[in-house]
Amino acid sequence: MREIYPVAPYPYTFGRYHEPIAQVKLNEMVVLYTEDCFEGRVQSEEDLPSVVAGKYLNPQTGPIYIEGAEPGDQLVVHIHDITLTRDWAVSAQIPFFGGLTATTLTATLQDPLPEKVWIYRKQADGRFAYSDRFSIAPAPFMGTIGTAPDLEALSALTPFMHGGNMDVPDVKAGNTVYLPVNVKGAYFSTGDCHVAQGEGEACGVALEISGKITLSFDLIKNRPISWPRIESPEEIMTVGSARPMEDAARIAYSELVKWLIQDFHFDKWDAYQLVSQAGKLYVGNMVDTYYSLVAKLSKEFLT
Amino acid sequence: MREIYPVAPYPYTFGRYHEPIAQVKLNEMVVLYTEDCFEGRVQSEEDLPSVVAGKYLNPQTGPIYIEGAEPGDQLVVHIHDITLTRDWAVSAQIPFFGGLTATTLTATLQDPLPEKVWIYRKQADGRFAYSDRFSIAPAPFMGTIGTAPDLEALSALTPFMHGGNMDVPDVKAGNTVYLPVNVKGAYFSTGDCHVAQGEGEACGVALEISGKITLSFDLIKNRPISWPRIESPEEIMTVGSARPMEDAARIAYSELVKWLIQDFHFDKWDAYQLVSQAGKLYVGNMVDTYYSLVAKLSKEFLT
Amino acid sequence: MREIYPVAPYPYTFGRYHEPIAQVKLNEMVVLYTEDCFEGRVQSEEDLPSVVAGKYLNPQTGPIYIEGAEPGDQLVVHIHDITLTRDWAVSAQIPFFGGLTATTLTATLQDPLPEKVWIYRKQADGRFAYSDRFSIAPAPFMGTIGTAPDLEALSALTPFMHGGNMDVPDVKAGNTVYLPVNVKGAYFSTGDCHVAQGEGEACGVALEISGKITLSFDLIKNRPISWPRIESPEEIMTVGSARPMEDAARIAYSELVKWLIQDFHFDKWDAYQLVSQAGKLYVGNMVDTYYSLVAKLSKEFLT
Amino acid sequence: MREIYPVAPYPYTFGRYHEPIAQVKLNEMVVLYTEDCFEGRVQSEEDLPSVVAGKYLNPQTGPIYIEGAEPGDQLVVHIHDITLTRDWAVSAQIPFFGGLTATTLTATLQDPLPEKVWIYRKQADGRFAYSDRFSIAPAPFMGTIGTAPDLEALSALTPFMHGGNMDVPDVKAGNTVYLPVNVKGAYFSTGDCHVAQGEGEACGVALEISGKITLSFDLIKNRPISWPRIESPEEIMTVGSARPMEDAARIAYSELVKWLIQDFHFDKWDAYQLVSQAGKLYVGNMVDTYYSLVAKLSKEFLT
Repeated sequence: MREIYPVAPYPYTFGRYHEPIAQVKLNEMVVLYTEDCFEGRVQSEEDLPSVVAGKYLNPQTGPIYIEGAEPGDQLVVHIHDITLTRDWAVSAQIPFFGGLTATTLTATLQDPLPEKVWIYRKQADGRFAYSDRFSIAPAPFMGTIGTAPDLEALSALTPFMHGGNMDVPDVKAGNTVYLPVNVKGAYFSTGDCHVAQGEGEACGVALEISGKITLSFDLIKNRPISWPRIESPEEIMTVGSARPMEDAARIAYSELVKWLIQDFHFDKWDAYQLVSQAGKLYVGNMVDTYYSLVAKLSKEFLT
Repeated sequence: MREIYPVAPYPYTFGRYHEPIAQVKLNEMVVLYTEDCFEGRVQSEEDLPSVVAGKYLNPQTGPIYIEGAEPGDQLVVHIHDITLTRDWAVSAQIPFFGGLTATTLTATLQDPLPEKVWIYRKQADGRFAYSDRFSIAPAPFMGTIGTAPDLEALSALTPFMHGGNMDVPDVKAGNTVYLPVNVKGAYFSTGDCHVAQGEGEACGVALEISGKITLSFDLIKNRPISWPRIESPEEIMTVGSARPMEDAARIAYSELVKWLIQDFHFDKWDAYQLVSQAGKLYVGNMVDTYYSLVAKLSKEFLT
Repeated sequence: MREIYPVAPYPYTFGRYHEPIAQVKLNEMVVLYTEDCFEGRVQSEEDLPSVVAGKYLNPQTGPIYIEGAEPGDQLVVHIHDITLTRDWAVSAQIPFFGGLTATTLTATLQDPLPEKVWIYRKQADGRFAYSDRFSIAPAPFMGTIGTAPDLEALSALTPFMHGGNMDVPDVKAGNTVYLPVNVKGAYFSTGDCHVAQGEGEACGVALEISGKITLSFDLIKNRPISWPRIESPEEIMTVGSARPMEDAARIAYSELVKWLIQDFHFDKWDAYQLVSQAGKLYVGNMVDTYYSLVAKLSKEFLT
Repeated sequence: MREIYPVAPYPYTFGRYHEPIAQVKLNEMVVLYTEDCFEGRVQSEEDLPSVVAGKYLNPQTGPIYIEGAEPGDQLVVHIHDITLTRDWAVSAQIPFFGGLTATTLTATLQDPLPEKVWIYRKQADGRFAYSDRFSIAPAPFMGTIGTAPDLEALSALTPFMHGGNMDVPDVKAGNTVYLPVNVKGAYFSTGDCHVAQGEGEACGVALEISGKITLSFDLIKNRPISWPRIESPEEIMTVGSARPMEDAARIAYSELVKWLIQDFHFDKWDAYQLVSQAGKLYVGNMVDTYYSLVAKLSKEFLT
């Protein structure tokens, strides 16, 4: 199988301004290797990110030029597998970053939380732990996945209409992600693999790890979508990324209503009723430049 | 078993200003009957809420005076059973109310969504439906549950530190709710039974129904909590209600961290790590005067 | 002139549940004396609010029963004079309260800012100062002013549709405040006099002082308003109080558009254009349970 | 004086990816001509933006390479004059854009407001009007002004740390704007001239016009700032752009406190007190991708 490695200098944005590192055909199976969010520089509890990390976080593997992709298409990303390529992962408390601290955007005059690093190591039972206190079962997914916006180059720390740093645990093996194509070739990239992450990613840093992801791509031609969608064997999902968080919730459910109308022939008000009574709505991240919320509906309602 | 019926004029607030309708001993098993949110006035699709509903919504059954409850205690509410007392339920689109519309608080110059009523009827298979399009499996819970704030009388449409209109599906049979006691006797009340509801309650109105709820009460003396907590057989949960929604998320996870520190002897940063990597965070409501978010942690981490 | 003094136990809410302390006729000139927000208990820099202040803040002078006031009326409050009744004022940094700190509603895991008290003393030139660093020119206004909500009893720390703790510097002598009447007699109260305050009241505590306010009342019968309005000799203003802050902005401008349509016969879209090109919009408070924004329009456009 | 004209294809982003159109020396006086936000395509009330406007709005004049500018410097922009170069201006209601409507980010299921265009023409008295109803006095300023972010290319509709589409009326002749330099040469650009605009820009479109702006540049070397600052003859100002709006307010006042500490030798808590008691805080825009708030302090406190 074709293997694609990240190429330095890595892109730290989603955008059209970085040259593609590979060109992929539809339905071609490829393996992408990804660096961790710190480029592997934080390796011990003494490696404080403010000291050893580079200026930018979330190096991407990409952009990948998808043959045949044109603006207005949906890029269909089948995630066949995500394999962790290390036996350790890293999390951290970074000053003025995270969900339970003032940040550069929610600015206060308080002191930051202490900077700290945790090295989680894989245990005999396959779980990851940094102490005896608790261990975390692997549930790997990609924190970043997206295409190029048409005009902007957006930081790899930002989730938005193009996907990006959504930090949504449903971006996992067995699921399919639908992304808007805004530029010819789509300029797909991915990275920021997580061993696991709680909903919301409260401290801002999951169990960060390098990984390899097996993917294939397809297109839905001339069928534009505004925001990312995800499909699992059991559910359809939409992701809204915005601030304040209620705007992300509104986007997610509005997009789910639209999907029901467009592809499943629901009346508008029936669709609104259905998601009101049977939808799920969880927080992907509450820490990034936009918050990402995921609305879900069981496929039992789609027959 | 002792049965307690709602007494007209019903309270439409949580507060100390309404006389208790009953006094209950600790560990006494009681059945409370509850009216639906419209007091049963919306019975057909022609009964528009703006015409037939009263001025206030969410009539409460209560207040119930809990013997021995003092400010600073936790009121422990064991929910043994919730039984629906009708074979039909009602949902509605109410002008300028709901999650996917401008509202009185998110004010715009747009026209409202059309006012509409749906009558869901119980089907042979036990599910509820208003058409052939879809049916909803019952998952009954109480939309409102709470104690009196110490000073304020808060609308029964408002969720806050005292509980109230949280619209959180985990307020269900088999679970235990912990509420702050702010006044002598606690002044507990509940109502707003839902056959089922999606996370977020997107249109603002669930499958509204009358019900009866079997409860018993206990106290944790001199152990104040700021916000409601819920315990299921598998998980511990905290509920934060605020606007914007990220403030509700911050409260929910902060309270979960505090709970881990106080009752389960976690170090502060270990607790923050744990909820960051293993917590769940879903939206109870995105429509009420405050949004309610629920943070959860599996009890597997508490041993 | 009739003088009305605050009566202990003071009300710390706006609501119908507290007995009126006085009954006033329309157009009767009255003087209301008000306590400072701490009830005068913080008198030196050693008097930390967390130690010496009572459980509740913002004692109100009221409720005042206004003869003839009925639900659906507007209560017209002419502010003839505000006189400071002390030669010193107090400000403070209170833990987890204020605009540039995490708070109980914007909860984080950080330590609070240090608790501090400043005693400002009146200088020879009439300005107030606590050191040589700077002095503040008096621009006195009432932090709280409002009527009773119809059903709720809302904390005197809360601004909302009834007025309340708006902390809006335009509630000053020479201006007229219009408030909704929700209960018979209106149940007007006021308090929380400020020597002066910056827009936003960033640290949460202005130059707090006792005062006396000379008022007379009038009614606009059967002409309900949803939110407070203010009129100065030069401008009309609307106040929206909500979270997030953009919701307060939306309310303020929506109400201004409504006012132009209803009383000044503007077409809806002309009104929207006018406030878009000539409106002013400032932050009254960014610290209270709801944020208060003030939209203004010069009367030059109303002829 | 040297004149610089916008060069097609115009940049619609702030970023390092567009070639500079001119290189300017420090203290050189230059005149920049700017197109209106619609590139002059909306010329009558029949020219609906959804039909005649291009895909992108806010064409920029730039980037201008500033000699000697290095990352970490402040770019000092002296605005000597802004002259309107047409005798008419255009405003509009654009579907799902503006402050009193649902938008693409605050998504609802409601219909949009009607699309409308207003052509304001200069009157004999110098004011602008589209009808007899009202006229607007010119108070020209630049809606967009900024430098390149270090990595991102941000839409010219976005205000952020680099400046950009702040829509702040204090960006006017006689004032000085301080911008962060993130890339060598700064890559300055400006555009989106407004005849006048209300605070908040409620409908999202001011009196849009072409203009020419007379500028000179200077640098404060090695003195990084995070957010834009403005100085008028009477006041110092900071601009925060974020969502929700309270985050923009927090940034603006935090930056003002920092400025007082760094350049005017204030103690941190004295600075917090001062802005709390004497600061001003108004809304620049409540419509763009981030909301922009302006905190001000009179220079009387800086001696």
